[in-house]
Amino acid sequence: MSYAQFLSSKLEAAGADEGCMLTVETAGKTYKGVLMPHHEFSGQDIVILKVKSGYNIGIRVAADAKVIVLSRPAEHVRQKAVEETKPDLKTIVLIGTGGTIASYVDYRTGAVHPALSTADMINAVPEIKEVANLKAKVLFSIFSENMTVDRWQQLAQAVADELNAGADAVIIPHGTDTMGYTAAALSFMLGDLAKPVVLVGAQRSSDRPSSDASSNLMAAARFCVNGNRAGVFVCMHDTPSDDSFAIHCGTRVRKMHTSRRDAFRSINVPPVAHLDREGTIAFSGAGRAVSSARTEARTAMEQRVVLLQFYPGMDPVLFRDVILQSKGAVIAGSGLGHVNENMVPLIKEATDRGIQVVITSQCLHGRTNLDVYNTGRDMLAAGALTVLDMLPETAYVKLMWVLANVKGADAVREAMQTPLAGEMGDRRLIDE
Amino acid sequence: MSYAQFLSSKLEAAGADEGCMLTVETAGKTYKGVLMPHHEFSGQDIVILKVKSGYNIGIRVAADAKVIVLSRPAEHVRQKAVEETKPDLKTIVLIGTGGTIASYVDYRTGAVHPALSTADMINAVPEIKEVANLKAKVLFSIFSENMTVDRWQQLAQAVADELNAGADAVIIPHGTDTMGYTAAALSFMLGDLAKPVVLVGAQRSSDRPSSDASSNLMAAARFCVNGNRAGVFVCMHDTPSDDSFAIHCGTRVRKMHTSRRDAFRSINVPPVAHLDREGTIAFSGAGRAVSSARTEARTAMEQRVVLLQFYPGMDPVLFRDVILQSKGAVIAGSGLGHVNENMVPLIKEATDRGIQVVITSQCLHGRTNLDVYNTGRDMLAAGALTVLDMLPETAYVKLMWVLANVKGADAVREAMQTPLAGEMGDRRLIDE
Repeated sequence: MSYAQFLSSKLEAAGADEGCMLTVETAGKTYKGVLMPHHEFSGQDIVILKVKSGYNIGIRVAADAKVIVLSRPAEHVRQKAVEETKPDLKTIVLIGTGGTIASYVDYRTGAVHPALSTADMINAVPEIKEVANLKAKVLFSIFSENMTVDRWQQLAQAVADELNAGADAVIIPHGTDTMGYTAAALSFMLGDLAKPVVLVGAQRSSDRPSSDASSNLMAAARFCVNGNRAGVFVCMHDTPSDDSFAIHCGTRVRKMHTSRRDAFRSINVPPVAHLDREGTIAFSGAGRAVSSARTEARTAMEQRVVLLQFYPGMDPVLFRDVILQSKGAVIAGSGLGHVNENMVPLIKEATDRGIQVVITSQCLHGRTNLDVYNTGRDMLAAGALTVLDMLPETAYVKLMWVLANVKGADAVREAMQTPLAGEMGDRRLIDE
Repeated sequence: MSYAQFLSSKLEAAGADEGCMLTVETAGKTYKGVLMPHHEFSGQDIVILKVKSGYNIGIRVAADAKVIVLSRPAEHVRQKAVEETKPDLKTIVLIGTGGTIASYVDYRTGAVHPALSTADMINAVPEIKEVANLKAKVLFSIFSENMTVDRWQQLAQAVADELNAGADAVIIPHGTDTMGYTAAALSFMLGDLAKPVVLVGAQRSSDRPSSDASSNLMAAARFCVNGNRAGVFVCMHDTPSDDSFAIHCGTRVRKMHTSRRDAFRSINVPPVAHLDREGTIAFSGAGRAVSSARTEARTAMEQRVVLLQFYPGMDPVLFRDVILQSKGAVIAGSGLGHVNENMVPLIKEATDRGIQVVITSQCLHGRTNLDVYNTGRDMLAAGALTVLDMLPETAYVKLMWVLANVKGADAVREAMQTPLAGEMGDRRLIDE
């Protein structure tokens, strides 16, 4: 969608091309910034300005607004709009999936649509082109609550293909709702991949003054280029301001707030690294360095796995079919991983049928231990398996992956209790 | 169980009565403290000393150990062992339910049993008798993962009976696993009760050096006596040390760590109050003052309510019966409260049948809002109800209570969206 007639006339009359620094005076307020490309799905009366803080803001322009051009872009800035490949920079492929980071508010309806192309995203952060050569692809355009196991598989394969075709890193703009689950899925599917894969989201859509889309994307790119760390990560704000960005391990991260920009938290481990506003990277520990090895995507998943939270009053009769019709069940128990004594016979029945029952804790923080209390011992005797400090959501994803990629009940149990992608402590190293 | 023969002889030879300050030298170490009563379920070779820090520690005494009495208790201390009622002190009734706070390690097997009587608990904290007159009752002796809705009902009635019989406050020692759920249940069942009811737990059993049982109990008693605040609360450590105790609102608290002493956290609100080691109370806001009104227990609960967490890959076919056989379902959605688009028709089918579907967020922090994205609008159109910043667990308990105590679908929806016991923000006061 292009500008409304009155607005394109007004911009033309002022000589306001994209890249110009200008002021817009409308509805009693004056805004100053660099004119950005008009988004296809933004309202016809909206202009997007990149303001001094680096944010892109959308401004509804009234018919009587005044537009004044303050300066024109230097020639080298305008040239940047042309796609160019700098031989001294690394190559990052962006694989778009949708989500708020790729969203624009439709100012006519007030609704938010997942509409921004990955190329639009790059253009909204022109300074990112100083950091790396970027290529943009769109794989999905969905909100992440609609992510499916099938789409995880497609995404993992697409990432492996890009890395094997020569990309130095992949960045995946993703809706935040289920970004933690997807990060875990890619972590297991891509195994010991040799390069960085970073999921990045936004809690505010890109045309809002407070959007965190550009700054998260920039931090992710800097980590990919300068971090020399292979693996699957999530990059988001570490604080409500733009001062600090956290790189989280893909199997240890959870969305812990519905709306804050620093909603994502590493649970039971510190973040892998922090970046400041200038891109300086501070690691919290050692990790796997980047190498030139090929990346294999092992995408098979057993989809008949369920994730359940235990609660007082949980009726084993009601959940009998849910558990017995599955191949594996992850239960977020209370405290150290407990369930009500009434649930124990159902666990026994399930494990007798070869269904893997994996116990995590709804506390999220800390580790499970069924050796302390009688309830836990009964659960172990019934065949339940604990997985130390693994998140319930990560255990759910891992169990799907292990059941499809590891053969034999004993090997499955062993794999579930062994760290494959940083998802749990190592019981061989923990002082019980 | 009494002491082993060798140990009772050794104590007798040293003249070591309960209340004596003594040293025990055993296995190359020397311990100093006041000899406490022997616990019925402790090992025969264990003595319990109250050490300088205030902790009670259990020491296994070897046959060649040396016991030396340093001083004997003054006459007034020994008299405290006699039950006495001081007319100038308030009366607190302790209603025991079991849990770690009432547990002892069985040193023969290493297992932990819920075995300590409430009277034992009081005797382990003799200084509490300076704060209030205490009466001890045992209602249950269970681990809290075995708490049931029926037991919540018995407990609420027992609390109301004690308050109406003249108690100034009730303290409920409770296992920590489901203490948050019980606190929420009592909050709704006891409504606008006129006195303080404080649940208190321990993350370490009472005979361990690091036990938090005594200090939590003491802080709870001080809050009951000096707080002048009516309601249902949880009192636990606010930090890993014994420097600060938090009083949490019973509908806003969640166990957020499997083992730390400061595992309990108020979510989306600050704690009601903090107490320091000396018992000084700092409130974070206003509340209901204590009065002499009678307390009514409205204990009816609709038990056909389920609590589910949404996750990518959740199969609406698998969960169809679970939801349609219930009278209400609470779903912890992703982000602002979303579910996969495949789940929306099931929500519609449920609400068409008169089943209440209540949406919370698995983020725990922040509030739900289904007005922002298309998925949320579809969920609202399907009849789903959001409850602002209410915890999933509290929403589950509240829905059981509302369905049994409020008549008519519209009134149920209105009650779910109106704060009854501090469990949510007030949407009339929130700037949408």
